[in-house]
Amino acid sequence: MAAKPPNPAEIVAHTVEKATDTLNAVLKRAGKPAAAGAGKPGLQISPLAVDFPKIPPIGGVEIAIGRAGFYKHDRPDLLVMKFAEGTTCAGVFTRHRIGSAPVDWCKRQLEASEGEDIRALVVNAGCANAFTGKPGADAARRVAGAVAKRLDCRQRDVMQASTGVIGVLLDDAKIAAKLPELEAKLHADGWAEAGRAIMTTDTFAKGSFATAAIDGVQVKIAGIAKGSGMIAPDMATMLAFVATDAAIAPKALQALVSLYTRETFNCVTVDGDTSTNDTLLMFATGASGAPRIARPGDARLADFREKLEALLLDLAFQLVRDGEGATKFVKIAVSGAQSHASARKIARTIAESPLVKTALAGEDANWGRIVMAVGRADEPVNRDRLSIRFGPLQAALEGAIAPTYDEAKMSAYMRQPELEIGVDVGVGRGEAAMWTCDLTKRYVEINGDYRS
Amino acid sequence: MAAKPPNPAEIVAHTVEKATDTLNAVLKRAGKPAAAGAGKPGLQISPLAVDFPKIPPIGGVEIAIGRAGFYKHDRPDLLVMKFAEGTTCAGVFTRHRIGSAPVDWCKRQLEASEGEDIRALVVNAGCANAFTGKPGADAARRVAGAVAKRLDCRQRDVMQASTGVIGVLLDDAKIAAKLPELEAKLHADGWAEAGRAIMTTDTFAKGSFATAAIDGVQVKIAGIAKGSGMIAPDMATMLAFVATDAAIAPKALQALVSLYTRETFNCVTVDGDTSTNDTLLMFATGASGAPRIARPGDARLADFREKLEALLLDLAFQLVRDGEGATKFVKIAVSGAQSHASARKIARTIAESPLVKTALAGEDANWGRIVMAVGRADEPVNRDRLSIRFGPLQAALEGAIAPTYDEAKMSAYMRQPELEIGVDVGVGRGEAAMWTCDLTKRYVEINGDYRS
Repeated sequence: MAAKPPNPAEIVAHTVEKATDTLNAVLKRAGKPAAAGAGKPGLQISPLAVDFPKIPPIGGVEIAIGRAGFYKHDRPDLLVMKFAEGTTCAGVFTRHRIGSAPVDWCKRQLEASEGEDIRALVVNAGCANAFTGKPGADAARRVAGAVAKRLDCRQRDVMQASTGVIGVLLDDAKIAAKLPELEAKLHADGWAEAGRAIMTTDTFAKGSFATAAIDGVQVKIAGIAKGSGMIAPDMATMLAFVATDAAIAPKALQALVSLYTRETFNCVTVDGDTSTNDTLLMFATGASGAPRIARPGDARLADFREKLEALLLDLAFQLVRDGEGATKFVKIAVSGAQSHASARKIARTIAESPLVKTALAGEDANWGRIVMAVGRADEPVNRDRLSIRFGPLQAALEGAIAPTYDEAKMSAYMRQPELEIGVDVGVGRGEAAMWTCDLTKRYVEINGDYRS
Repeated sequence: MAAKPPNPAEIVAHTVEKATDTLNAVLKRAGKPAAAGAGKPGLQISPLAVDFPKIPPIGGVEIAIGRAGFYKHDRPDLLVMKFAEGTTCAGVFTRHRIGSAPVDWCKRQLEASEGEDIRALVVNAGCANAFTGKPGADAARRVAGAVAKRLDCRQRDVMQASTGVIGVLLDDAKIAAKLPELEAKLHADGWAEAGRAIMTTDTFAKGSFATAAIDGVQVKIAGIAKGSGMIAPDMATMLAFVATDAAIAPKALQALVSLYTRETFNCVTVDGDTSTNDTLLMFATGASGAPRIARPGDARLADFREKLEALLLDLAFQLVRDGEGATKFVKIAVSGAQSHASARKIARTIAESPLVKTALAGEDANWGRIVMAVGRADEPVNRDRLSIRFGPLQAALEGAIAPTYDEAKMSAYMRQPELEIGVDVGVGRGEAAMWTCDLTKRYVEINGDYRS
């Protein structure tokens, strides 16, 4: 397939937020129903939701969705993607000690194939096939076998992911029964429906799109993700699938996704709970006609690297924006730490503190709780140089309440849907950021009756 | 003062729960107003509350409370205890990196005096005097100075604690102004009122009492505690003050409280958040006439040690029972771990998981979330040998759902106010327990508007 010239309209089709940018105003949708694919009927869409972007076809990728019936209500819960011959693949998976059958499957097959010639992805929502022992592993193998037979490839060329309730064995026959229908429906332009088919407690479908130039040839990058609870670094309860028509060797692709996962998906947290099924898979079909790149540091990849990182960060932000019950999207920026790792630990401790998160829900600039969280991170801090700001407003300075502290201004700031908390711990030059949301009664409500 | 003979009625005045006991049924009080001393008007008493025990006078201890005015509403917020000459003291303090002025004060003075001849304790609620820099330290020194002057002792003989909002400088003049009134009111029989004076968001006053025999002489141990949020190991946001009429050398006293804190206060968690002000102080007046004990391992202390540990555990349990918004008192018992430390980390990860805690609030035996929490603790576990039970009911066995799993029975069990979750991770012989409560909408409500 020949490369198309860059299309500026397409390039700006979806605004990718950069980590360091001032946070944008959000679309206000409180009270509206969740997207059609939502895991539970009756969910309301997150007030922090963003629109699913316009994603054009990606050369070498065909998509189909259907209803395998893992949910009682009528919603798509099955996604198949078919990739062109020669597609390379890389993945990042949960570091959870228990893991799941589909995660085990992908890791093993990627090792065997070294990421070369991956031909299909099959994803189901509604059943995680985690903690299901050998029967679960057998079910995962049968899923791959059925897809391989239908799409005429080897079992090991099939990647898979499952999301939903833990501890329930996957009924793979439900998937196999739908494959003929999905094969017939495979088409190039299905990213929005793919985003909907993988949702669980998500209230909106999550996608991102970018274009980049490789050696003068325009390539496209498209991604979808799901996740709204059990979200924490390493990684979230989240699935993300990214495809590009660039041609990138598996090792280079793996290096890029590993590197950028650390500063994107591993910098967001909703509840500090890591899932058994977290999976990020990236596929490169090579259909753009751009030259195949072998090394991640290749100068011709500069633009691609930047766009890919921004796209992953955009998807990660959308997970936080759909944090269960979330009404605030909050950046925690820590500076003055002994190291980047130390800053990161402090930022994460703040971002996961129930007392900080409930104060955010209450629109309370409770900087005392920030002090509490900083201190319990057990990292070097200088109490007498500690300063804390909410957006541009200084709350604490040099270890005590700021002389300019103004409760009325602070309260006005806290009413905004997007907040930034800056903390300088006064010992060094280490910096890190973490993104989180508030902890509301809705979170408790959603999670108090998930299985019912 | 001569030793009294043991009084069995007094010994059983308050049932001290043992860690390994089956949990008792709780008093049902849902909807009733909180005790008079509560930090906020309008709080409802915890449905898991227990009665304040009958605590008799402890020889060598005099108590008075008053209203210094740190709260807008009418409630006692100031406590003074006066101790007999020769009283020894030991303390365990927050490991929080930022700490507070009163904690700094106590640590420094205990080091200077080596715990000998401590004569007074002054405690205020409503202001934590934490993160208040040098002015805060100066205020703490003036508080000790005012008490020393009034009670005719040295500044360093005065212990102190503050609890309440962080980042507000303590107005020590409010305390000094009330000291004449409190000195005049000092009396022997004030433990119940002392328990009320130190409450913040607590909904009931917490106390415990025990007697023990040392070398044939009966001694008494009395304790009060406060805390309901910002509760986590190392330690809780909690203050606890324990006094005995036994005579124990400071080093032995320190060894005992350090040892037992680990298996009592450091085994309870409400929200994983550690406070800047956590303080446990223990005073031994020697007024019983029992012989002074120099070594913690002295055989004559055997009964005392057992009773002291049970008393500290009783106080720790009361913190969990008053966990903000709690409706369930839950023991997490982990076995089969590689070591005690590993079991402890797994138990704590389960006990602090928002997804586990919201499931408990929803009375949902969601063992998949237990699996999730076990796996993210990042400790050695054997997935194929993992088993999970709720009380006597097996949920998961050998890495999969238990064949005897019965949803109806499980649901009935989960409706009880006191629950036990047992997890065997199948790799070794390490065991540990942690106590926690559920995460309810009330927690979010209470903490969303704490300062307002």
